[in-house]
Parts: sequence; C-alpha cells; structure tokens
Amino acid sequence: MLGNFTYCNPTKIYFGKDALDGLKGELEKYGKNVLLVYGGGSIKKNGVYDKVISILEDCGKKVFEDAGVMPNPTYEKLLEGVDRARKAKADFILAVGGGSVCDYAKALSVSVHLKGDPWDIYFDKFKEPSCKIVPVGCVLTMVGTGSEMNGGSVITNRYKKLKIGHVFGEEVFPKFSVLNPEYTFTLPKYQMVAGIYDIMCHILEQYLSGEDDNTSDYIAEGLMRSLIKSSYAAVKNPTDYEARSNIMWTATWALNTLIAKGKTTDWEVHMLGQAVGAITDATHGMTLAAVTMPYYYHILPYGLHRFKRFAVNVWGVAEGKSDEETAVAGLKAMEKWMKDIGLVMNITELGVTPETVEDVADATRVQEGGYKVLTREEIVEILKKSL
Amino acid sequence: MLGNFTYCNPTKIYFGKDALDGLKGELEKYGKNVLLVYGGGSIKKNGVYDKVISILEDCGKKVFEDAGVMPNPTYEKLLEGVDRARKAKADFILAVGGGSVCDYAKALSVSVHLKGDPWDIYFDKFKEPSCKIVPVGCVLTMVGTGSEMNGGSVITNRYKKLKIGHVFGEEVFPKFSVLNPEYTFTLPKYQMVAGIYDIMCHILEQYLSGEDDNTSDYIAEGLMRSLIKSSYAAVKNPTDYEARSNIMWTATWALNTLIAKGKTTDWEVHMLGQAVGAITDATHGMTLAAVTMPYYYHILPYGLHRFKRFAVNVWGVAEGKSDEETAVAGLKAMEKWMKDIGLVMNITELGVTPETVEDVADATRVQEGGYKVLTREEIVEILKKSL
Repeated sequence: MLGNFTYCNPTKIYFGKDALDGLKGELEKYGKNVLLVYGGGSIKKNGVYDKVISILEDCGKKVFEDAGVMPNPTYEKLLEGVDRARKAKADFILAVGGGSVCDYAKALSVSVHLKGDPWDIYFDKFKEPSCKIVPVGCVLTMVGTGSEMNGGSVITNRYKKLKIGHVFGEEVFPKFSVLNPEYTFTLPKYQMVAGIYDIMCHILEQYLSGEDDNTSDYIAEGLMRSLIKSSYAAVKNPTDYEARSNIMWTATWALNTLIAKGKTTDWEVHMLGQAVGAITDATHGMTLAAVTMPYYYHILPYGLHRFKRFAVNVWGVAEGKSDEETAVAGLKAMEKWMKDIGLVMNITELGVTPETVEDVADATRVQEGGYKVLTREEIVEILKKSL
Repeated sequence: MLGNFTYCNPTKIYFGKDALDGLKGELEKYGKNVLLVYGGGSIKKNGVYDKVISILEDCGKKVFEDAGVMPNPTYEKLLEGVDRARKAKADFILAVGGGSVCDYAKALSVSVHLKGDPWDIYFDKFKEPSCKIVPVGCVLTMVGTGSEMNGGSVITNRYKKLKIGHVFGEEVFPKFSVLNPEYTFTLPKYQMVAGIYDIMCHILEQYLSGEDDNTSDYIAEGLMRSLIKSSYAAVKNPTDYEARSNIMWTATWALNTLIAKGKTTDWEVHMLGQAVGAITDATHGMTLAAVTMPYYYHILPYGLHRFKRFAVNVWGVAEGKSDEETAVAGLKAMEKWMKDIGLVMNITELGVTPETVEDVADATRVQEGGYKVLTREEIVEILKKSL
C-alpha cells in the first residue's frame, strides 16, 4: 500500500434470495417519477419485471419506461434516454438488468440535466459531472461488470467506432443494488461464462501491475481462487446457488475500487477487448478472453515476478523450476480453465478478420501501468496472434 | 454466500502519508463545536495533536477537549464525556488515537442526546440508538481494532466486571477516518504486536465458522497471508512503511463487516479475552493471544475440515497426512508465528491467577456460531490451560 488513496463506497447492497425485499424501503427515499430502464425484455420472461412493477406501484410511483438498452449501449440510445428522462421529469432511475443496463443508467443520470453533449464531455474529455445527478438504483440480473457498486459507465459510439468507459466518482455510484443470485439462473451459458471471464479479467487488470507487496493483491488472489472454484461448479450446474452467489459477490468486489487501492493497474486487455467490441459488437467478456493469452505471453517477460506469484498463489503451480517455467505453467493452467468453462479463445470467432485487424488496432487505446506499454506494432502483433 | 445479507459501509478513508490533507474538507461539512477526544497524550509527543489543532483552527472550529480516554474505556469515563459533550454543545466528535478512542467516541456519539443510561440501553440491552447521533470522525494512530470503519464500540464496566461490545449500524460508523501509517511508527513493540494479533483474531473469528464455500473466506485467507508476511517485516523494522501500511489496511478490512457477509461467525476468543481484560485490564490483543491456542485445540475436532483448510491455504502446510495431522500442523505454524512476533502466550503473564480463573469464567459470555458452543466447564478448562 505505497500510494496515497481515498476509499469510499456508499452503495448499499441487498444480497440473497430475499434481496428484492429491500427495494421498497429504498424507493421511498426518492421522488415520485421513476424511469425504469431495462434491456431486451428477458426480465419479462423471468418474472423480475412483474415483481419490480408491483413494488413500484406499492410505493405509489409514477413509472416511465426506457426499454431496449442493448448489450453495448450506444450513444444514440443514451440521447434517446435523456429525452425520455427529461419528459418524465425523472426523480430516480431504476436499472433492471445486467452491467450494460447499469452502465447506461449511470450515463443517463449525469446527462439528464447536462447542458452540452454527453459523449463530448464524459467519454471524450472525461470531465466530471457539474450538473445535478439523477440518483440510480439497480436490480441486477446478470453478473460480471461490477457496475452495481461502482461509478463505471461504458458507452459505444458506432459512428466513431469507439467503446469508451468513464469511471465516475462516488456521487454517481448506485445508491443501492439488489443482488439475487437466482435472477442469474436463466442466463444462457455463453453469457454466464462471458460474465465470469469479465470478473476474472477485472481482477487480473488490477493484479498484474506493480512490484510492491500490497494487501490489495492478496485480496485479489482470494477473489480469483473463489471465482475459479465456483465457475467450475456453475458450469456443471447453473442452478448451484452457492456457486452463483459466490460468483455474484466476487464480481462486485472485483471492480468496486477496493483491489486497486494503493497500487498501479493495467487495463490493456479491456482496451483491446473493447476495440474488438467496437468493431464486432461481440459479447464483452468473450472479447476479453479472446485477446488475453497473446497479451499475457507478450508482457510476461516484463512482469515475470508477478506472473510467477500468480502461478503459485492462484493456480497452485509448484515452485522449484525456473521463474519463467513457473510463470508459463500458471498461464497454461489459466488457459486450461478458460477452455474448460467454454470461453471463446480467438477473435476470428467473434468476427474480426485479417482485414479488420488494423481497424481494431485503431480503436485500441494504450494504457500505462502495465508491465509493458504497447506500441502500435505490438498491438497489431497481439491482435494477429489472437485471430 | 448462502445467507441473505445487506452490506453498506459509507465511511470515507483517507490513506497514506498525506492522509491528513483530507481532514479540512471533511470538517467543513459539520458545525462549529468540535469535541476533540484522545487518550493519554502520546499524540502530543508525536506531533499529531499539533497538526490536528492547526487544521481545526484553520476551519474556524471551537475546540473542546476530552482527553484521558484509557485503553479499555470505562463506563465512568463515558459518563464524564457525555457531560463534556453536552456542555460543549458538540456538533462533531473528532477521535484522535487508537481503537479505544474511536470506540469511546462512537459510544459518546449515541449517548450525548440519549435520555437514559447508556450502559443499560446499549451494553446491557443492546438497543439501537433512537436519539440524535453526533457524527464522529477519526484520525488513527494505532492499528488493530478496525474501529475506524465499523460500528463497534467496546466499553468496560469495572463495577460489574464486564467488558462489552455493541456493534452499531452504519449510521454510527465514522463519517471519515484518516489513516497515515507513519503515525503508528512510534508505538512500542508490545502495542504493535498486540494490535497485529487483534487483527488476526478478528479475521479468524469470522473465518473459523461455517461449512460452506464462501467468497468471504477466500478474502479472509488473502488478508491473513498479507498480515503474516507484513508482521514479520514490521517486527524486524517498525518503520517499514510498506509493512505498516499493509497492516493498517488489513486491520480495517478485517473488521468492517465485509468478511462476515453471508456466513456464520464465532467470537468466543474475544469473549474469553475480554473477560481476561475485564479482570486484569491487560492489553486487548494480548488477552486474545493468551487464550487462543487452548481454545483452538479444544474446538479443532468439531471444525476439522476448516482447520485443515486454514493449515493449507494460510500456513502453506502440505496436504497428504491425515486431516487431523494437517490441521494440527497449521495450528503449530500459527503458534510459531505468534511466538516469533512476541505475543503473550498465557494469561498468567497478564495477571490471571488460579484463584481468579472463576472470576474470568463468570465474565465470559458464550457465543453461538462456533464449531462448539462452550459449557461453563469447558470455559474453565480452556482458561486453566491458558494459565
């Protein structure tokens, strides 16, 4: 913990089979006009929509709907949502869905009262909101992004071929989030394992950076060990409540600022994956999985010490060989796990072709904080190895 | 994560060498009258008092002092503090010191406007505050209790020979805490290692309970591994900033409610240790250390599976022997660590005699949630083995 930092995470979590019981008391703290934000309608099939509507009615709320939030929420959708929220005079935004819906709700919350263009201000210039923020609450039905307990919001601009995340401060964090693991049971396996890898990647982007002995890294190792164990159980039996609940809680702590405290972080896998997503509209977690191995093998020589620790402490690789052999054995163990749970291991399957590799490279932002700051040539090389 | 739970921890943390820079902005949120609460005056020797006073003056605060908070803050002292806070018309309580000072400040915060006796209401009947709460902020100078980011408050009633903790809800949590690891450098080694063991014990009381596969336990294992490594470094060199900062941050997360989420917990070591403290006024962490081994050996057969996991995942004991041998090897590794860092390993050294064992047993509350709920006979047996 060598750096100065501040930590504050005020989001209240209601967790468990009865988590939705907390919704009524929370809603009562806010005004009458509620903008209900959700995605493609899966919440109508699994009954969550009806339960939420019933609670909103119980509270005497005037409900306005903003449906159709897509997996990679777009700038155009955001502008449409701003119009709806303004017409509704929304006092509160209730997001019911996965991370995309939560991300979108937060982008909306800082844009409703904004004078100016939200893309320009938040996702191009990364300014902090100076306008009034409409408070957000979440009912989570998919797991992975951690959006339920942080200030992150990723928006895709299809015209500019950019998928950009802004990490807002604690005033934009959801006021509360309802986490019922059972709501995630009906998710298709492809989405479930993509979410699991999103979680793993969040942890790794924070873990595979820095040289010091930092408590955050020990917490990260614990989260990864829990995730690996529970992922096997969830793939075997998607209605294993214990496994799905551990995955849900690990997702929250993987990206709610804690494990980045006092240390540097590296978000290059997300930069590469988001670029793949901007070009292909592929599922976020899969875009991360598909570029991970080429990237990690590329930076391994620069962060050998940490990759060795990762092999031993997370994958249980026995020490004794050379550091490099131990580190590579760790990556091989990770690769086996990725294949075991059914992740997409190349970007070809996601729609990238040799012809569009340069477009993906154009859309890839370079992060500092990793063991090697990538050049344009290295980005192209990693993407080609990911094909 | 099998149980339903809520999680909310709104305390804002300022961490690092420049942490005190956050104090001014926080103080500006509250009224003019500040009750400055501290202990025996060590903060005047290490310069922290002067720095804090200077910031309070900068903010134009009217400062009222309540000094002399003792290591085990007493009920009488609490009543004295209530008088001072009422006379001061305190808008805010600023605690500068260790966990005892923070604990005391929180007890004060819920007692200033209370109609009735605080011992009776909070520490005998465990009621929640229904009166106005005076907000508390902390500047931490000792590490161990975790009081800087939770609702815990332990008060000693010398007449009743009781040392009782109440865990208040999030409205009583400190609004902010300033954590500068350098403030802990001047602490005598005895106090430092007692604090380190208090941290370890907090984690273990939550970890050594339950049967399920719970993410909280993986986080707990990470925290313990970090603590063990940093404790050796800190004992070797008390001004090792990296080690002291890891210990400070681990202490906060050891007892800020996170690692108890979704699981049962066992606080029997604290019950035994606090009873020793009530009779002898010995240092809290040492009272815990002195009863730990006899208690753990006693409950090991009832929680064999978890003690085995503890041995392997925390102490690196190789599997392969019988579960019991593995579990015992873990406890032996822990005992070696305890002796290595200089903990008191028996209650005789703390002032308990064969004649006062029954008094300690009288003061020991029995907790449920552990692998074995103790009978009176078992308590006496454990205490005798701790002599």
